[in-house]
Amino acid sequence: MSPCAGDDWAQRAEELDEQDPLAPFRDRFLAPREDGLVAYLDGNSLGRPTRDVQERMAEFVTGAWGTRLIRGWTDEWMGWPEQTGDLLASAALGAAAGQTVVADSTTVMLYKLARAAVDAQQRHGRRTEIVLDTDNFPTDRYVLEGIADERGLTLRWIEADPAEGVHVEQVEQIVGPETALVVLSHVAYRSAWLADMAAITRVAHDAGALVLWDLCHSAGAVPVQLDACGVDLAVGCTYKYLNGGPGAPAFGYVRADLQDALRQPIQGWMGRRDPFEMGPGYTPAAGIRGFVSGTPPIVGMVPVRAGAELVAEAGIEAIRAKSVQLTRFVIDVADSWPAELGVEVASPRADDRRGGHVTVRRADFRDVNQRLWQRGVIPDFREPDGIRIGLAPLSTSFGETWRALEVLVESARR
Amino acid sequence: MSPCAGDDWAQRAEELDEQDPLAPFRDRFLAPREDGLVAYLDGNSLGRPTRDVQERMAEFVTGAWGTRLIRGWTDEWMGWPEQTGDLLASAALGAAAGQTVVADSTTVMLYKLARAAVDAQQRHGRRTEIVLDTDNFPTDRYVLEGIADERGLTLRWIEADPAEGVHVEQVEQIVGPETALVVLSHVAYRSAWLADMAAITRVAHDAGALVLWDLCHSAGAVPVQLDACGVDLAVGCTYKYLNGGPGAPAFGYVRADLQDALRQPIQGWMGRRDPFEMGPGYTPAAGIRGFVSGTPPIVGMVPVRAGAELVAEAGIEAIRAKSVQLTRFVIDVADSWPAELGVEVASPRADDRRGGHVTVRRADFRDVNQRLWQRGVIPDFREPDGIRIGLAPLSTSFGETWRALEVLVESARR
Repeated sequence: MSPCAGDDWAQRAEELDEQDPLAPFRDRFLAPREDGLVAYLDGNSLGRPTRDVQERMAEFVTGAWGTRLIRGWTDEWMGWPEQTGDLLASAALGAAAGQTVVADSTTVMLYKLARAAVDAQQRHGRRTEIVLDTDNFPTDRYVLEGIADERGLTLRWIEADPAEGVHVEQVEQIVGPETALVVLSHVAYRSAWLADMAAITRVAHDAGALVLWDLCHSAGAVPVQLDACGVDLAVGCTYKYLNGGPGAPAFGYVRADLQDALRQPIQGWMGRRDPFEMGPGYTPAAGIRGFVSGTPPIVGMVPVRAGAELVAEAGIEAIRAKSVQLTRFVIDVADSWPAELGVEVASPRADDRRGGHVTVRRADFRDVNQRLWQRGVIPDFREPDGIRIGLAPLSTSFGETWRALEVLVESARR
Repeated sequence: MSPCAGDDWAQRAEELDEQDPLAPFRDRFLAPREDGLVAYLDGNSLGRPTRDVQERMAEFVTGAWGTRLIRGWTDEWMGWPEQTGDLLASAALGAAAGQTVVADSTTVMLYKLARAAVDAQQRHGRRTEIVLDTDNFPTDRYVLEGIADERGLTLRWIEADPAEGVHVEQVEQIVGPETALVVLSHVAYRSAWLADMAAITRVAHDAGALVLWDLCHSAGAVPVQLDACGVDLAVGCTYKYLNGGPGAPAFGYVRADLQDALRQPIQGWMGRRDPFEMGPGYTPAAGIRGFVSGTPPIVGMVPVRAGAELVAEAGIEAIRAKSVQLTRFVIDVADSWPAELGVEVASPRADDRRGGHVTVRRADFRDVNQRLWQRGVIPDFREPDGIRIGLAPLSTSFGETWRALEVLVESARR
């Protein structure tokens, strides 16, 4: 559809909201206080709190923590890393139980799993290269630079198209007998390019490499099929589409049949076999538990569990369907803007190659983004010139999106 | 003092509570629900929630997270790792600002700082040994085993006296030109032996070694003088005497004049200079910020800040004075038990060599501890035969302690 005037888009947004089967889920999020907020288009950076977080946290503080006290560990908390991991795995990751844990930050989890992979490759052969791409999320690039430096490995860079991302042909050309590990983002943090996980994983495996996918911008918005794609390792954060709150703990996935062969470097008591024996010598716990290091971040996991349960309830396929509609709506509206506005859509136009956000760009969008924030419209700015419109499907309406785009185009006209 | 009968101890406990200047602070903790809890003697494993945690968390969820949303990062959260670190440093660690951060788990922080230390030593020379002790906390031993393994270093073990801990003479005998790093606990997790931080740090420095202190069982109970002792590195947890909640984030300390020379291995975006430039290549941020890796655990820091502020308000010297009285009281009571009971005090008798808990032991204390838990008296059991009586000074009364000891002696008589 392509209405010509603003009023038509508003009506179209209204229709889409009326037809949206997930519309009732917007009430499951906490309403913000009066603060001049017009539209929140950054749920892909920090998701909103679910409405029940306050109550769950209050119950947690009084009950499990404040009353059960240390007994909370044996009551329930000791199993939370795997249980919360399984909840995410089943709700959003296409992974059977026993392969996912919640712990650490994404950065630390990435370090642990990437080290586990390259260390195993170095034990079994002489593979010396890590493949990654120039547009991967900064922390991924920095972590891998550090690992390459300390382990004497070479980084091989795929030049990602900034408006798209990494194509399977590029991976095919770069992997080879030297490749230890391929690390890519499933959804690119700037363009929202949705990489072909199945094909890329296959190509890497054909070359004998292990593959680690960063799912930060997929988890909870784009269905992931870790098991079906034969993925080796994955990491992701829970504070975006999973609504776990600022700095919520990360998740890590290690394929079941790799768990015995891989060993992560941060040997902590909570990943040891029989931790309360407290005896000499570290032996990793069986299974995914061996990828836990320190004391699990229980307080930080309370909102993560609420968010993951909400995604499970809504269903990841329904979430994706709305996500595609939301991003398609933004692209359609942007396409209706006059050419002299000079705004370029910097995200894939093919629905099946686009994640949950849309980036639009113009040379002065850093300033425009500031004006949007001043007017209570909150997208994200991403270097060098992109306004990134995040569209968390469970908490964002088409009407809210349209109001934001109206303000955006007004601000861009100034 | 040494009353002979139970009634006299009860009266003595009452007197001590009446004279206790910190007694009003007990009301600053959340009262547990009715759950048969008689006495909580494990605040050194998991501290109670402060009374204001619920309210602070509710305000955090609605206000900073739920209303300010992503703007919370620029409003305030970006600085929380250092600000919360400075708060702890000033309240409990004897450290000037700019040397402490809150991030990660203790295990991960220990890995990062120990790696930073041994990597620097290896860059500047050929020091190949890490000194630690047999009774150090398990995660410390496991982490260091892993580091020794991956960096080709040798572990040199000090045999700690189980009822005491590491003496300065033992450190003096073992350190030498090969020593890269000495890692010890300030307060031993079983015996509560309080190591001589000043003397041991000096002895290690004289040998050219760096020193990393684990402050988990000191922070918030025993005054620490990191700056005055010239300590290089320290880590600790915030969920014991700092009441940060289960799995609360850790803190790390790096002496100001070492920060430029040390480089931690987990190079994440939040420890990079100008993180939102998101450009190629990792350069650590200046100062202590370079020791941050991933996105700071903001939700998990909310209770930590409440706990640290409470310690600051009460004053660490006053807390220590009560702590010494509490542990002395337990030892005096235990000394009054008949010899045929066969209970041995396994903690130092000298007040100035004892941290905030007292361990009593007997061959069957694993079973006795279970009976105590069934009766609502909650200490900790520590292998092989110790009941560890934790006495968090701000939340524990002498009366509560006495009631627990009555139940303990009854259970031990069965």
